Amino acid sequence: MPASDPRSHARAILEAALAAVDPALALKTALRREGDLLRLGGEVLDLAGFDRIIAVGAGKAGAPMAQALEEVLGERLTAGRVVVKDGHAAPTRVVEMLEASHPVPDRRGVEAGAKLAELLAGADEHTLILCLLSGGGSALMVAPAPGISLNDKQRATSLLLACGADIAEINAVRKHLSTVKGGGLARLASPARVISLIVSDVVGDRLDVIASGPTVGDGSTWAQVGDIFDRYGLWEKLPIPVRERARAGLAGQLPDTPKPGEQWFARVSNLVIASNRQALTAASEKARGLGYRPLILSSTIEGETREVARVHAALAQEVRASGHPLAAPCCLISGGETTVTLGERPGKGGRNQEFALAAALDIAGLEGVLVVSAGSDGTDGPTDAAGAWADGQTVARAASRGLKARDFLARHDAYGFFAPLGDLIITGPTRTNVMDVRLVLLGG
Amino acid sequence: MPASDPRSHARAILEAALAAVDPALALKTALRREGDLLRLGGEVLDLAGFDRIIAVGAGKAGAPMAQALEEVLGERLTAGRVVVKDGHAAPTRVVEMLEASHPVPDRRGVEAGAKLAELLAGADEHTLILCLLSGGGSALMVAPAPGISLNDKQRATSLLLACGADIAEINAVRKHLSTVKGGGLARLASPARVISLIVSDVVGDRLDVIASGPTVGDGSTWAQVGDIFDRYGLWEKLPIPVRERARAGLAGQLPDTPKPGEQWFARVSNLVIASNRQALTAASEKARGLGYRPLILSSTIEGETREVARVHAALAQEVRASGHPLAAPCCLISGGETTVTLGERPGKGGRNQEFALAAALDIAGLEGVLVVSAGSDGTDGPTDAAGAWADGQTVARAASRGLKARDFLARHDAYGFFAPLGDLIITGPTRTNVMDVRLVLLGG
Repeated sequence: MPASDPRSHARAILEAALAAVDPALALKTALRREGDLLRLGGEVLDLAGFDRIIAVGAGKAGAPMAQALEEVLGERLTAGRVVVKDGHAAPTRVVEMLEASHPVPDRRGVEAGAKLAELLAGADEHTLILCLLSGGGSALMVAPAPGISLNDKQRATSLLLACGADIAEINAVRKHLSTVKGGGLARLASPARVISLIVSDVVGDRLDVIASGPTVGDGSTWAQVGDIFDRYGLWEKLPIPVRERARAGLAGQLPDTPKPGEQWFARVSNLVIASNRQALTAASEKARGLGYRPLILSSTIEGETREVARVHAALAQEVRASGHPLAAPCCLISGGETTVTLGERPGKGGRNQEFALAAALDIAGLEGVLVVSAGSDGTDGPTDAAGAWADGQTVARAASRGLKARDFLARHDAYGFFAPLGDLIITGPTRTNVMDVRLVLLGG
Repeated sequence: MPASDPRSHARAILEAALAAVDPALALKTALRREGDLLRLGGEVLDLAGFDRIIAVGAGKAGAPMAQALEEVLGERLTAGRVVVKDGHAAPTRVVEMLEASHPVPDRRGVEAGAKLAELLAGADEHTLILCLLSGGGSALMVAPAPGISLNDKQRATSLLLACGADIAEINAVRKHLSTVKGGGLARLASPARVISLIVSDVVGDRLDVIASGPTVGDGSTWAQVGDIFDRYGLWEKLPIPVRERARAGLAGQLPDTPKPGEQWFARVSNLVIASNRQALTAASEKARGLGYRPLILSSTIEGETREVARVHAALAQEVRASGHPLAAPCCLISGGETTVTLGERPGKGGRNQEFALAAALDIAGLEGVLVVSAGSDGTDGPTDAAGAWADGQTVARAASRGLKARDFLARHDAYGFFAPLGDLIITGPTRTNVMDVRLVLLGG
């Protein structure tokens, strides 16, 4: 039976969730070496068959992944280059750490892309490439196609955003302007054996979306790119090199992006080693161990944060009223990544803090319920918090200090609401990112 | 194991849900007579102790409730008057059916209120009053306080709406301007024995909210009414009789609304005989009988419809991906009442149809999933449909006819989307209302 301190339980459950997606631990769990044998997934690789083993990669989790890979491969690792976000580097023995700007790419990202490509240039069938991918990889490893500048790419993306193109359309164009995105890295590495180890920060773990899918075939085509430019009337507005590349692509003078099933992917494996679902599963196991009946709702929850929070609160209400969807003590668990539509002059906050604030309003007065929402990367919006806690007394406790929950929610100022209450969750950067984890804990 | 026709299963589950909240059946289940003994809830009443048994009531389910009551009480029913919505009357033997306008009250509603009060006037301790309440009762049974006209009340309500007062504030004012709302009917009936039989159309089955709580103590006060008029600067704008009544109330010259625990309620029982939760429970049992694992998520789900739909779709995705929150074949069940925030020049639809349309987009391509949302009253928004069906092929099937789901959703034209597909659910008026029922059916 859960004891009287739900917060310490929630903290333990959250820690278990984060531990399960720690990039270094996840890599060492996914990749086990016994002498010359490397076990990964259901596969066994004989390292003796390779002359060179090279690590490449990009993403916010690059440093701990590189460190763990060095630990697993020891002296067998020949070389490596991994791009990480500024300030995210860490000491490595063989792998060269490159830093670049995120989320807006810079010249160092382009240089890093070139350095990675250089490392892949000599790859042959006796080369094993281990590709370490995580969230942010797309902005950190930039490799514009020949003749295209970083500015050209950014200008094209801005135009697409401004005309209301959807994310699938934007990605189709970007993959056609890049040397590494959309399977490009696999093509560069071919005919080497390529194993991508992936920390997923994408809803549904879509391999073609995580870090723009450098080792996954691209389903989009030059014809679609042309249609997109037609549909939004962009041809005349595009930078000249982009326009000329698209025209050449449409005329069949340039190869299309690597397609699923093409030879580039014959020796490529993609392995998700850490995901939101893994975090939720670990949370579920920990909750059970603490005496709560766990229920994983979904790892793919998107949508407007405050509305998603209301649904979670309604489930909490129902547990108390009728024992559905399951009887207390229980722990409802969900993941994914919601959005916040900001109005004019919004306050300070993030989607996890806003989730907790919106839930607080709907569970006000309910006994023995604790709601927690936290970003697995330790950063929620432009704040130093990962998320926040809320319970049935939060709204009243705030009101007694003159803080009106509904007003703070209306102006998206969840940080301003929770900070004076001491109810922010502060973890610092976790160096992983598998989106968000939300818990609704109901005591017995 | 569920067979190959999920629609017929969903239809059967929906029918079971509606049957469980049929007002006549529900009344006959809740109220059982054996000679002079009347069993209700855990109580037994000896009818021999009463000289007169009188039915009063208001609401859209008034007619079937009155018919069922006549059936149960037979010759023992002395008299009755029940107000129903125009066109909702039905043949009765003893109970007089009164019709009035809904949702905007009219003069007939005021006359009906007076006729009900007249019937209660002679009630004494040997009178048993059965009060039949259901959704719409508040607009149908109107009894402005002495000196206040229907126009005065409506003007006050409009002013409150216009200045952004919330529903609790509006209700506090309205209860203070009425003779029957907020416990007023119980006061009129006192010292009779009063039993309210209630079909709940309110999230969380709040007795003080259903039909404005005519037999439930009111927690709001004249002081709060004064605060509300202060806060929104309404004193000078209110109709003179409303202003004078409020001033008299604040000065202690008028009694406040009946308060919980006061003598008026000593012989009052309130019994919810049909609710959203009962509908969901019946749906759950039927789903189990058809071979699906059922899971009731919550009967109290509110929020913006399209976002709530996304959460449901995310759960369906997760069932397919990982067997959470439970393994297929399964049936996720939810209820409550969501809202739709309309933009300019919206199309035709209702919250249930919009739910199905928004869900269709998020489950597009998913195999063996069927989403159903229907209003239990058979009416969804200003349409002739109760709701709509959607499955993983809906969006593609529509696209092949030139109907782009995202565009229809953007302009809130769910009826225009589903009508040509033949995917509207048309039940006709059901004469009950326990809000909405949603099903997500996942085949094995």
